[in-house]
Amino acid sequence: MLNDDLIGIPGGRWRLQTPALVIDLDVLERNIARMADHAARHGVNLRPHAKTHKSAEIAKRQMAAGALGICCAKLGEAEALAAAGVESIHITSPVVTEGGIARLMALNGRMKELIVVCDDAEVAAKLDAAASGKTLDVFVDIDPGMGRTGIRPDLAPALVEQVARAGNLTLRGLQCYAGQVQHMESPNQRRDASFSALKELGALRDRLKEKGLAPAILSGGGTGTFGIDPEARVLSELQVGSYVFMDRQYNDVWTKPGDRPPFETSLFVQTTVISANRTGLVTTDAGLKSFATDDGVPVIAHGAPEGAAYFFFGDEQGGVIYSEETRKLKRGDQIACVVPHCDPTVNLYDRYHVVRGDTLEAIWPVDARGRSA
Amino acid sequence: MLNDDLIGIPGGRWRLQTPALVIDLDVLERNIARMADHAARHGVNLRPHAKTHKSAEIAKRQMAAGALGICCAKLGEAEALAAAGVESIHITSPVVTEGGIARLMALNGRMKELIVVCDDAEVAAKLDAAASGKTLDVFVDIDPGMGRTGIRPDLAPALVEQVARAGNLTLRGLQCYAGQVQHMESPNQRRDASFSALKELGALRDRLKEKGLAPAILSGGGTGTFGIDPEARVLSELQVGSYVFMDRQYNDVWTKPGDRPPFETSLFVQTTVISANRTGLVTTDAGLKSFATDDGVPVIAHGAPEGAAYFFFGDEQGGVIYSEETRKLKRGDQIACVVPHCDPTVNLYDRYHVVRGDTLEAIWPVDARGRSA
Repeated sequence: MLNDDLIGIPGGRWRLQTPALVIDLDVLERNIARMADHAARHGVNLRPHAKTHKSAEIAKRQMAAGALGICCAKLGEAEALAAAGVESIHITSPVVTEGGIARLMALNGRMKELIVVCDDAEVAAKLDAAASGKTLDVFVDIDPGMGRTGIRPDLAPALVEQVARAGNLTLRGLQCYAGQVQHMESPNQRRDASFSALKELGALRDRLKEKGLAPAILSGGGTGTFGIDPEARVLSELQVGSYVFMDRQYNDVWTKPGDRPPFETSLFVQTTVISANRTGLVTTDAGLKSFATDDGVPVIAHGAPEGAAYFFFGDEQGGVIYSEETRKLKRGDQIACVVPHCDPTVNLYDRYHVVRGDTLEAIWPVDARGRSA
Repeated sequence: MLNDDLIGIPGGRWRLQTPALVIDLDVLERNIARMADHAARHGVNLRPHAKTHKSAEIAKRQMAAGALGICCAKLGEAEALAAAGVESIHITSPVVTEGGIARLMALNGRMKELIVVCDDAEVAAKLDAAASGKTLDVFVDIDPGMGRTGIRPDLAPALVEQVARAGNLTLRGLQCYAGQVQHMESPNQRRDASFSALKELGALRDRLKEKGLAPAILSGGGTGTFGIDPEARVLSELQVGSYVFMDRQYNDVWTKPGDRPPFETSLFVQTTVISANRTGLVTTDAGLKSFATDDGVPVIAHGAPEGAAYFFFGDEQGGVIYSEETRKLKRGDQIACVVPHCDPTVNLYDRYHVVRGDTLEAIWPVDARGRSA
């Protein structure tokens, strides 16, 4: 029986062919609504990052809850989500090659709203030269001190001015994403680091205002600082991504009492026991190809006795070590795991299995899976 | 310009939209031919593991060079490669669920040759019950002491006998894959550990022979022991996989002088510099979503000055630290990296870009990408 045949059948969730990527829809809906409430209460807009979910269905739900549009990390991701009907996309990584710029212009011609970052004068000139016919919307990318992308704040005014004056470009705003801050474990440290980056961005905004180049949009922030950044009153919108799923990394970031965000884990990888010939050890069907492995091991959420631990048992398999005293795991038993890191884990799967309780409600494509180019 | 448009254009390899998975076809062809020579010289058969490449094109080339068939790790992988025209497949992981067994029988009905492992009496009974119409070929899976899959050698004779006597199953042989041995760094340690597992398998074979249950096929081994295992004269065939690509892991295993195998690295991830606003540091477009990250960082093979080092700079980007003294890296420059671990890296990409020298010759699908279920 294929997974599609299980839709609507009671208990079907636990009969999936696995490994399967599973979304708890009740939780996903709550997460989307709660972030929308948070933004409305604090007078900040949302442009959620779709690099987390790569799904047009989820992007549309975020926009229906009030988001201005969504962010994509890559041009290919934007092409895939635009093809699946998402109408407003901001691309958060520079597009710099001749081939990439040609694709960007073609996409711009097809879309209601497309914005792209730029962090270099030479690239800005190329974008301006290529964008004949329809102007291209640009955010100038500001380096928050991380050195990954973005121009240094002290060098930014000249680039902002170049973009503002370019005939075929429209300066929409600034992007400043402090990726290095999002996973700091102490909330105070996170607050100090984020405020420090935003203070510099605020000073740049004021300098630009004096020159008559006031940017309309200041875009940045993430799930690690969603509750902190609005206080600084610099960003006009948040690029939050992982709040929809809440992986183990972000669950670890938000552990302080009184500091827990209103988001819960909605994303799981479900796996099946395929071998059970040892005492207190079974082998499952989800290994290194079924989880991103950049930050630790999966955390068992359902299906195994208390205290059971998951480990990677090669490319194709996982292992579960547990005590048989309460219950023995058998071949065919299914286990659901919280993933260590959601974005690159989602990128391994073609489909989401969307459940309410124990019922499989729908299967959604991961539209932009693998679209890193 | 899309990558498809670059096929046949001189220098096109270095104008790819990236990140792109690249195969050096000259090297791939040499690797396939040299393993075939090795097997012929030592009187051992090949059943190469397609979990490495997930490609029908490469599987067919391995079979054209003399392989009996190929191995797949999962049922879904086998379904995808069968659909792409591969006629003989052995599935190396147990298939145990009701849904999985139904899919297995449907696949068996469509294929010229399908073999599956079994490591449990109850599962053997289910396979026998489901395999009406066309008998199912089985390898009994023997645990080489790793505890991942397989039955303990001392308990194996009863299961072998059950499979041999089952009306709808055909006992084809034994599988014993010592995964724990493949990456041991000392060749002597690798030899001792592999011989020890194979000695036990040989003893089991002899015991079965006395009972009139002599297995025709003994299948196992990998790229870490390809040169060692034939000496033990136990395995009749090798399940080598990574030799086609030679990732950093296997390059590290084979470093002893006089012990180098005749295989070279044929697989690369190619990435483009997208930001260059710092001294001695550039940002590329390949991060955690473009490499498997279970074992270290990519190794730069082409495109950056001597001594440059790659690091992961988040989900979407990589960083290159280098000395600007000899040459400055610019936006648009392309860098080719040896991947840390080939199997799960290949599983991230939908297509291989197949090059000879600097020319893109073809684009091959990664037919079984993501087919872990």
